[in-house]
Amino acid sequence: MKFASRVATTMQSGLDELFTAPDPELISFAGGYPDATMFPQAALQGAFAQATEESAAFQYGDSWGLPRLRRHIAQWLQKDGIPATAQDVLLTQGAQQGIDLAAKMLLNPGDGLVVEAPTYLGALAAFNAYEPQYYEVPMAADGMDLGALQKILMTHKIKMIYTVPDFQNPTGAVMSLAKRKALIALANQYDVIILEDGPYRWLRYQGESLPPLKHFDTQGRVIFLGSMSKILAPSLRLGWMVAAPKLLEAAAALRGASDVESSQLVHRAVALYLEQNDFDAHLDQLRQCYGAKLKLMHHAISAQLPAGYQLSQPAGGFFLWLTAPAGVDMTALQAQRLAPAHVSVVPSKNLTPSHQLLNGARLTFAAPPTAKIEPGSARLTAALAATATAQAHRA
Amino acid sequence: MKFASRVATTMQSGLDELFTAPDPELISFAGGYPDATMFPQAALQGAFAQATEESAAFQYGDSWGLPRLRRHIAQWLQKDGIPATAQDVLLTQGAQQGIDLAAKMLLNPGDGLVVEAPTYLGALAAFNAYEPQYYEVPMAADGMDLGALQKILMTHKIKMIYTVPDFQNPTGAVMSLAKRKALIALANQYDVIILEDGPYRWLRYQGESLPPLKHFDTQGRVIFLGSMSKILAPSLRLGWMVAAPKLLEAAAALRGASDVESSQLVHRAVALYLEQNDFDAHLDQLRQCYGAKLKLMHHAISAQLPAGYQLSQPAGGFFLWLTAPAGVDMTALQAQRLAPAHVSVVPSKNLTPSHQLLNGARLTFAAPPTAKIEPGSARLTAALAATATAQAHRA
Repeated sequence: MKFASRVATTMQSGLDELFTAPDPELISFAGGYPDATMFPQAALQGAFAQATEESAAFQYGDSWGLPRLRRHIAQWLQKDGIPATAQDVLLTQGAQQGIDLAAKMLLNPGDGLVVEAPTYLGALAAFNAYEPQYYEVPMAADGMDLGALQKILMTHKIKMIYTVPDFQNPTGAVMSLAKRKALIALANQYDVIILEDGPYRWLRYQGESLPPLKHFDTQGRVIFLGSMSKILAPSLRLGWMVAAPKLLEAAAALRGASDVESSQLVHRAVALYLEQNDFDAHLDQLRQCYGAKLKLMHHAISAQLPAGYQLSQPAGGFFLWLTAPAGVDMTALQAQRLAPAHVSVVPSKNLTPSHQLLNGARLTFAAPPTAKIEPGSARLTAALAATATAQAHRA
Repeated sequence: MKFASRVATTMQSGLDELFTAPDPELISFAGGYPDATMFPQAALQGAFAQATEESAAFQYGDSWGLPRLRRHIAQWLQKDGIPATAQDVLLTQGAQQGIDLAAKMLLNPGDGLVVEAPTYLGALAAFNAYEPQYYEVPMAADGMDLGALQKILMTHKIKMIYTVPDFQNPTGAVMSLAKRKALIALANQYDVIILEDGPYRWLRYQGESLPPLKHFDTQGRVIFLGSMSKILAPSLRLGWMVAAPKLLEAAAALRGASDVESSQLVHRAVALYLEQNDFDAHLDQLRQCYGAKLKLMHHAISAQLPAGYQLSQPAGGFFLWLTAPAGVDMTALQAQRLAPAHVSVVPSKNLTPSHQLLNGARLTFAAPPTAKIEPGSARLTAALAATATAQAHRA
């Protein structure tokens, strides 16, 4: 028995490492989990109680998703600068399925795929199954390096560019307005599809939101993905794809073939939740909670950060990005220093397809309980300082 | 913009035709829906009420599925002749995702894949995305033609055999005990994986159950798929895969990359349902209901069936199989005679990869309300009789 060739790369993605159950002593800054105390549990429980009143809610539904929920999502996206109607919205099993479907419909083995370096681990895991030829574009504080991108576009045939323009996973960077417009222009010029992954864009804690790339899309070449996982609850497994009709029809056909549909029972419950609650007020509460946690963690770490280390200062999202001095391998440091100190981060090694970026790490302030942020930060900075001292002694 | 090559075949699978919303005047014998009046709505509502009491139920879970539910499924499967423990069970988004994952992990483009002819439409849709080389094995009343299979195995490299041994979709046939053992022997001899799809095996209305193929698997080459869609409720989107550890780990990795995980909230609700209710008694009720509907429909159709037509006599499952005289194209007949008479079936054309089988049709007795079975059967047989008369006049 031989596996298909796509299995080998998928098994090496490191996605499972991120989702293993944490050791109880550990303070984890690793997994990108939302804060469970912020879930509107009572309101969702009420919505599920209503949704389960009808036998019809337990029947098969529609592989595009519940029409009523597609309408709600479309209306909500319109306020965010995406001119979508219900039929432009395909509901997916989380945004992860949207990434998988976009890759499945567009990538033959060897097709050119641009990713930000570093990028979202789970996206690489999804892409790996379609065996693309990867091209990495370095991240800057204002989004991906468009000069580097243009060089790639001039010399290689690229099918798709994957980007997280808002509070990027893992760096927390926001793509500037100028870069958004320039990226669309490049995609138009070189006939490339942009896969815009936006799970964090509604979690801005300071400053003004920028329109999504999809807002500037005049040629139907931006596929926009969103998700309720970070802003309502992950176990709803509710994401959405907004794209041109031809793309969306192909994605829906592949989706039906993959797993038929999402649960219309869950769709009914989310629709009821949105109809009977003030979702904007809920988002404001999330922003206050996560904004305070970001501030706390940024302060706790930066106050004790050893020389040579740099910490990002994001305006939203879930993640801080730590850059160690060149030559430091964060994977080794995690195993040798952080794990024994009962603190964990996501080392950068698995966050690029080439596994060449070694001295970075993603830290989430969203998941850990507020009371664990300062102790965890102290463990982290103490471990980094001990490493720096040991290295200085050896030098 | 060009789609990946896998899109073209997927778009032609005809899966969407099966899941379109029915016209209100129509009596549909087409879609393989369970009878919504048989869902244990109150018990499931209670389980969801309990499951949603905890905030933790709304958090990310485990890409393998809720451990507690994996245990329940394993224990239940043990009673059915599958020696599985919790770690042998991967929970999937319906059995459809199990089909997709098996294909994804095993099939490179051009790899040999044996399917029964006719077979389940949705399986072909899933397989198409991995661009296999199909080989069709004709169905007989006691399961697939093993002589035909052996000829294929002797002359072609086959990676996987897809079979629905119990109350096959679409023919309703049950593979005999002798054929089950012989199929395992052939798979062992030719080093082939068997994908055993068992969504109907717990719905037998007469006679004795035969052990699943997985029961006879001594070399870890049977992947068994099951589902709650036909025996509890489709919108739970709950299926499972039982396979050797190496296969299951690859499937779980691909699953995480595809859509991370299923909803642990739903898993908790199903676990609570199984703990607090008599599932075997529920299954007995289903068997009584569906057994009576089968009897009613079989009688209604066979009493009025024109000469030259044959109707199967299944002992379980969801489907009757209608064979028209050679030369009759059921797709055309459906469009020209059945649709105008407001009755629908699934013509056989899309139920083989070659689209060569034209004179068959799948009819479900499970989905239509009992009161619609006789009127729908009358519409069907009248339309068939009118066709036969018209053909006789032309001859």
